[in-house]
Amino acid sequence: MYSLGIDYGTNSVRALIVRCTDGAEMGSAVVNYPSGSQGILLDKSDHNVARQNPADYLYGLEKSVTEAIRLARKKRGFSPDAVIGIGVDSTGSSPIPVDARNVPIAFQRKWRKNLNAQCWLWKDHTSWREAARITELAAQHHPEYIASCGGVYSSEWFWSKIWHCLNIDPAVFDAAWSWVELTDWVPSVLAGVNDPRAVKRGVCAAGHKALYAEDWGGLPEKDFLARLDPKIAELRDRLYEKAWDASEPAGSLCPQWAEKLGLKPGIPIAIGEFDVHYGAIGCGVKEGTLVKVIGTSTCDVGVVSTKKPVPDIPGICGIVKGAILPGYYGIEAGQSAVGDIFKWWVEVVCQGDEETHRVLTTEAAKQKPGQAGLLALDWNNGNRTILVDQRLSGLLLGQTLHTTRAEIYRALIEATAFGARTIIERLREYGVPIRRIICAGGIAEKNPMLMQIYADVTGCTMLVSGSSQACALGSAISAAVVAGAYKSFASAERQMTSLKDVVYKPIPAHRRVYDQLYELYRTLHDTFGGLKKDADLSGVMKRLLEIKEAQRA
Amino acid sequence: MYSLGIDYGTNSVRALIVRCTDGAEMGSAVVNYPSGSQGILLDKSDHNVARQNPADYLYGLEKSVTEAIRLARKKRGFSPDAVIGIGVDSTGSSPIPVDARNVPIAFQRKWRKNLNAQCWLWKDHTSWREAARITELAAQHHPEYIASCGGVYSSEWFWSKIWHCLNIDPAVFDAAWSWVELTDWVPSVLAGVNDPRAVKRGVCAAGHKALYAEDWGGLPEKDFLARLDPKIAELRDRLYEKAWDASEPAGSLCPQWAEKLGLKPGIPIAIGEFDVHYGAIGCGVKEGTLVKVIGTSTCDVGVVSTKKPVPDIPGICGIVKGAILPGYYGIEAGQSAVGDIFKWWVEVVCQGDEETHRVLTTEAAKQKPGQAGLLALDWNNGNRTILVDQRLSGLLLGQTLHTTRAEIYRALIEATAFGARTIIERLREYGVPIRRIICAGGIAEKNPMLMQIYADVTGCTMLVSGSSQACALGSAISAAVVAGAYKSFASAERQMTSLKDVVYKPIPAHRRVYDQLYELYRTLHDTFGGLKKDADLSGVMKRLLEIKEAQRA
Repeated sequence: MYSLGIDYGTNSVRALIVRCTDGAEMGSAVVNYPSGSQGILLDKSDHNVARQNPADYLYGLEKSVTEAIRLARKKRGFSPDAVIGIGVDSTGSSPIPVDARNVPIAFQRKWRKNLNAQCWLWKDHTSWREAARITELAAQHHPEYIASCGGVYSSEWFWSKIWHCLNIDPAVFDAAWSWVELTDWVPSVLAGVNDPRAVKRGVCAAGHKALYAEDWGGLPEKDFLARLDPKIAELRDRLYEKAWDASEPAGSLCPQWAEKLGLKPGIPIAIGEFDVHYGAIGCGVKEGTLVKVIGTSTCDVGVVSTKKPVPDIPGICGIVKGAILPGYYGIEAGQSAVGDIFKWWVEVVCQGDEETHRVLTTEAAKQKPGQAGLLALDWNNGNRTILVDQRLSGLLLGQTLHTTRAEIYRALIEATAFGARTIIERLREYGVPIRRIICAGGIAEKNPMLMQIYADVTGCTMLVSGSSQACALGSAISAAVVAGAYKSFASAERQMTSLKDVVYKPIPAHRRVYDQLYELYRTLHDTFGGLKKDADLSGVMKRLLEIKEAQRA
Repeated sequence: MYSLGIDYGTNSVRALIVRCTDGAEMGSAVVNYPSGSQGILLDKSDHNVARQNPADYLYGLEKSVTEAIRLARKKRGFSPDAVIGIGVDSTGSSPIPVDARNVPIAFQRKWRKNLNAQCWLWKDHTSWREAARITELAAQHHPEYIASCGGVYSSEWFWSKIWHCLNIDPAVFDAAWSWVELTDWVPSVLAGVNDPRAVKRGVCAAGHKALYAEDWGGLPEKDFLARLDPKIAELRDRLYEKAWDASEPAGSLCPQWAEKLGLKPGIPIAIGEFDVHYGAIGCGVKEGTLVKVIGTSTCDVGVVSTKKPVPDIPGICGIVKGAILPGYYGIEAGQSAVGDIFKWWVEVVCQGDEETHRVLTTEAAKQKPGQAGLLALDWNNGNRTILVDQRLSGLLLGQTLHTTRAEIYRALIEATAFGARTIIERLREYGVPIRRIICAGGIAEKNPMLMQIYADVTGCTMLVSGSSQACALGSAISAAVVAGAYKSFASAERQMTSLKDVVYKPIPAHRRVYDQLYELYRTLHDTFGGLKKDADLSGVMKRLLEIKEAQRA
């Protein structure tokens, strides 16, 4: 028996077929989205814009799955008929405006070229004003709505985006009968659902991103939504009443897509979850484990049993029942840019390429912590956790006339490690146990220097997921469970996930220096982030110079 | 009648022969110092080290002067016998350890390769600890010593450097019979002086840099110097009792050097001054004029009549009677790095060359003020005025994932303009009149974009010196005056200096944006510089984003 996981990333989609008994990979294929710049539709006049062409999702779906099947066929014993279920994960919140038949309005000639009619990709930050206003309104009228997302509603999320669309392009808003998250939409397409109200929505995407909770009867009440705009309140009737965790299927494969993909019709399709949530399952998440998916941005997720109450944690984006595993609160935090910052430095500023990444990594690896005298904030794309503020920007401090690009490269890596530590400290402070950290994603696998810095900065041993396709694997695990191959996620994870042999342990001498640098990082973080309003920064540059001189001596 | 000006810069020496009647240039030659990296001896393990091989000064002297004469000979009417005087300026404070015969100890085989036995170039910052201690001791025992240099003694100056030499390399200190500033040493060599006590020292270099003032009887009293070290107190006897302004000659050309250079023996040699001080004369400085020499670093100088008392101005490096023009206080301020910061960005970080400078300048010129959302501090080499603190470093803020190298290049230029404005505001605040600003130096001539930004940021019209060799011209003017071609510096300046036709006027729309950005600059400046110890920086990044969005709208 095999299951299929489909992972919609920021630049490409990946299909993965695994064996249900042990998670062995039978076939895998990646398809880059053909539209825009690396799959993203940009607007030169506004760096906050990030959209995606929904047609790319269908193109990538068919191409990646059929190719994965073609490759799996080469393995002994595999047959497409033995695929018992499909799971889908995607980026999010990435809502798509659809018509009354669940078809993206971007497929209509009229809207094809309109950026606002496309999928609003997770990292679109155009709606920061709306996000700030929703935060205000919720704080005033329904503080419970945002209590579990750190008290701050984000511009990356569902309502901000939809409301912003209404504000800047009401014609598009009016043309959309409803809005569906990418992660719910793909399963609904596979299941042949042609009514947005019939799309079985996942609680993962609904959770804090659409302010959904059973406690207050689903989505926010109409009166509240009317404070945004009466049209938003009306939209509520065309969305959904209930969202589901992964114990329920999203539907079963319709004949049309079964034929396109070469799979058996009728096999179950798992509820859609965001990439990192299924990624956590692909890494073997359980209580006490923090999973870090380190990519262009970073997501940090963990689970805590629903048997005990979980406190609201300031600045933690989302604590949602069933968002990852049924029976557990899913806790989600993250950094808005990690790999993207290194990419910016190397490709945009240094105008280099993959080889430049390698050269800078080699040079940076030779440096001692603190030796360059630099300190950076990892906010080039805002701060998701613990400040939940997109209206922040990068900062680099300590440069002299001799500072090299490799030193800055390392400082940027360290900045993301300090950001990671801030998240870990906040979670622990509020009683979330973190006994082990499992990392996944390309950077975790390919950059031992970064992983060692993360271990040294956080003081935690870093483990690496056995699968280099943890998100797709997690989707496949969910598919295996929903298809009945396992009775529980716990047993499926035990059988289907693994860890790599490599282990990154903190080096005590490095930790001591990074503890000093982290103190300075927190001073800058808290001051520029607004947590501290009467900071004395007169010693920051001098302290950096002292650390630098001590490390060079 | 002609006069010769010799200008010792950071990387090269320039000789200039001018006609005394109108300052017309007859011949000019530049010689790069052959030693070290672009003429500077560096130490890879300590970026504060900047030394120079004294042999380069003599090599450059002979080569530049003979070449300038060779070129001048091509002009009708010129003859070397018609050169009536020589003036010399140099960087400083750049003290050279010499033996009892006024010969640099670096010329001895034993010390040839010892970095501490060389000339301690102005921008050597190794002695920051000694500078801080001198500041402390002076504040406690003789506050008058540092009152006229902004209350802070600098690591760039005479006593810090010599004391540091004693602390780190006592053998070199003991081998040096005396120390002579480069700007005094070259005239003394030309005059054939072979006793350090007989070297006629200029008050320009002696002034605040060696804490010399007639008010307290010359150099600091022995008791004070003994607080540094008894050996420093002993050294006082082997230095000088009196320093002179430019109304006195330093000596007359000795036969040996007359022969080497092909000039008449016995012609007067003007008192040595620092490059910018003679540069101010070459620009036509008078009361109400601020002269900015914009190069690797920037020096800002002005004069105020000695008829009225001048207050101590906090953070202004030096107010010295006769340092520029006889009968006037010379006021000196400056920025530790300007061109050096652009050079660092282009050559070290971007790994580009002259062409890259051009490309980035073209791109940056297309941007509107504030459009990139960036803000930088110009402290990559510390801050000379108004903080007088070498223990500061660069800062860049506002970068996103789209920020380009050209945007950062422009932000660095703007940062130096904000630093320039800080100096202007401080001077005006204390009653120093600034009615016009004349700029000199390669950057002022070659970079109209920078000059316009300076006009827009400071709100002052920027004029450009007519001579591209203002420092050498000023030396030549001093030589003409000391040789009797003019009765006063005022009349010599009137005849021998000029302004370029180009004038940079502030553009009102730009000024408005830069006023907003300057407010943010001052917030960062005052907070990281220690002037403000309870700053609220939570709005800085948001304010930058607002300005950016307004400028892009």
